[in-house]
Amino acid sequence: MKNYKPKGRLTASAYIDGILKGDRVLLSRAITIIESNLESDKVLAKEIIQEILPHSGKSIRIGITGVPGVGKSTFIESFGKYLITQGKRVAILSIDPSSQRSKGSILGDKTRMEELATMQEAYIRPSASGDTLGGVANKTGETMLLCEAGGYDIILIETVGVGQSETAVHGMTDFFLLLMLSGAGDELQGIKKGIMEMADMVVINKADGDNVRMSEMARLQYQNALHIFPQSESGWSPVVSTASAIKNIGIDTVWNEVSKFKSLVDQNGYFFKNRNHQQIAWMYNNINEELKHLFYGSANIKEHLSVLERDIVSAKISPVKAAQLMIDEFKRSF
Amino acid sequence: MKNYKPKGRLTASAYIDGILKGDRVLLSRAITIIESNLESDKVLAKEIIQEILPHSGKSIRIGITGVPGVGKSTFIESFGKYLITQGKRVAILSIDPSSQRSKGSILGDKTRMEELATMQEAYIRPSASGDTLGGVANKTGETMLLCEAGGYDIILIETVGVGQSETAVHGMTDFFLLLMLSGAGDELQGIKKGIMEMADMVVINKADGDNVRMSEMARLQYQNALHIFPQSESGWSPVVSTASAIKNIGIDTVWNEVSKFKSLVDQNGYFFKNRNHQQIAWMYNNINEELKHLFYGSANIKEHLSVLERDIVSAKISPVKAAQLMIDEFKRSF
Repeated sequence: MKNYKPKGRLTASAYIDGILKGDRVLLSRAITIIESNLESDKVLAKEIIQEILPHSGKSIRIGITGVPGVGKSTFIESFGKYLITQGKRVAILSIDPSSQRSKGSILGDKTRMEELATMQEAYIRPSASGDTLGGVANKTGETMLLCEAGGYDIILIETVGVGQSETAVHGMTDFFLLLMLSGAGDELQGIKKGIMEMADMVVINKADGDNVRMSEMARLQYQNALHIFPQSESGWSPVVSTASAIKNIGIDTVWNEVSKFKSLVDQNGYFFKNRNHQQIAWMYNNINEELKHLFYGSANIKEHLSVLERDIVSAKISPVKAAQLMIDEFKRSF
Repeated sequence: MKNYKPKGRLTASAYIDGILKGDRVLLSRAITIIESNLESDKVLAKEIIQEILPHSGKSIRIGITGVPGVGKSTFIESFGKYLITQGKRVAILSIDPSSQRSKGSILGDKTRMEELATMQEAYIRPSASGDTLGGVANKTGETMLLCEAGGYDIILIETVGVGQSETAVHGMTDFFLLLMLSGAGDELQGIKKGIMEMADMVVINKADGDNVRMSEMARLQYQNALHIFPQSESGWSPVVSTASAIKNIGIDTVWNEVSKFKSLVDQNGYFFKNRNHQQIAWMYNNINEELKHLFYGSANIKEHLSVLERDIVSAKISPVKAAQLMIDEFKRSF
């Protein structure tokens, strides 16, 4: 199987060799294969992933989220450049299922991360296209493995903080960073419920000029608020800091905190434990997604469900009984 | 089928008639049938639920949670008695899957709700036994329907706040109440992550004597913290109050807030919309639970999974490929 080679493609081994040597072109082509929906590409993708596995894992994976307008691209540009001055190689991936529906992309904007995009030590890759969040998450997760094999020390995975992809990103990263703005009053600036609780660090961005005092107030407010959450299993207490990405202020603090976090979780064993846990959870998530796909993908089931929904609302059938009818139907379909 | 009658049981119609007339003995016996795992009882239970459906729904369903030691029973005793003075009939149900594993029960303690337990306007029922949370939630949900048909205006569903049952309770109630204590420092007193965000109201209990000042401070702290959460779809902003259940202080405030909530959601249409949504979600939860049960219940699958978990951790196979192998295996098993 190692020499399987669809038309217009190299063999898995050729891609692996290239990636391990740091060849960015072959890395990009391999990612395209991972993202492809062609059956022949899927076979090749599986071979590539299978062979890359032992070379993956050696990075710090950081999830970065925040609503549009918070300055995410500017932050990543600034943070990425800082990491490169620290001798790191940085890969930036993104998940944005909403933009897929609209056929746009959060990375489509040409002016994003202009300087970073030209640096040899940075690798920027927009989100994979995919019809389901599970599919997108799989592809981003596998892309991450390829980047690690390609020698990137830091993987930044970006989401927009308003969808459901944050849980997926949280489930594939070591450290979760939430970008916020000051002065947005009491509302959580459109961020999805539950995201706050996943954050290892909150950065109040755009803390410059007239905004400094407000940002400091917001920092205190969030720091107090985070105290009411139960401590994470990692033993890490979430921190809140201010930054101005555009002026490169406070960016070093972010990296210092990530480094502190890494030392802590290396020492207390959480890093290794969490990675193993994430890998196994990845399998189970896939299984559960596939099970649902098997069930809900059936046209017959779909038709029955819409009738049952109406009958439930009009109290003609109990939800438990309706579910049982559907499961019996499903079993008969094999 | 209406006259189906297992040995030692009445017909479904007999139970329904009794329940609708407010017969507590028949209500209790019907709940016992709902909770039963005998096949003959399951058939009878389905008939009872099917016939009770049109008579259910006319109550306010309140979820109450808080860790052991927060004074939950005392609060429910005090709150329940207060509701009765307001002319209400109150049913108290509980979900505590953890006590089922240990064969204990949070309602096993004979001294709990001593006065309430003797009142004609109150009906107290400990949690159903069950092997899975899904099973327990189903039985509690169906018990709730029977209580509503029995004329109880307020259903209180109690959980301990440290397990996974709170999401289930949140999914079957209209209003979610979290009991807390002051002076427990920064930690969230053992409460599970995410519960805070579900709360429509937080009550700082044991606010009496030397504790009053601390409780007021805790109230302010929680009130500020809750502001950072995005607004709920109900349009309701969560409130925080203090109370002393043992001294019957602040109990009327809780009911006032519940009433205000009810007016709001009646007016903006959320009450009805949410109830319909919950009913339909109940079916889907059951379907998804059953699908997992079909898959993970297979001995063959279980054996494979434990091998695959090891192979994933040692990077021998990718999580996505492992999941695919298992789904293929599952399909072949039919």
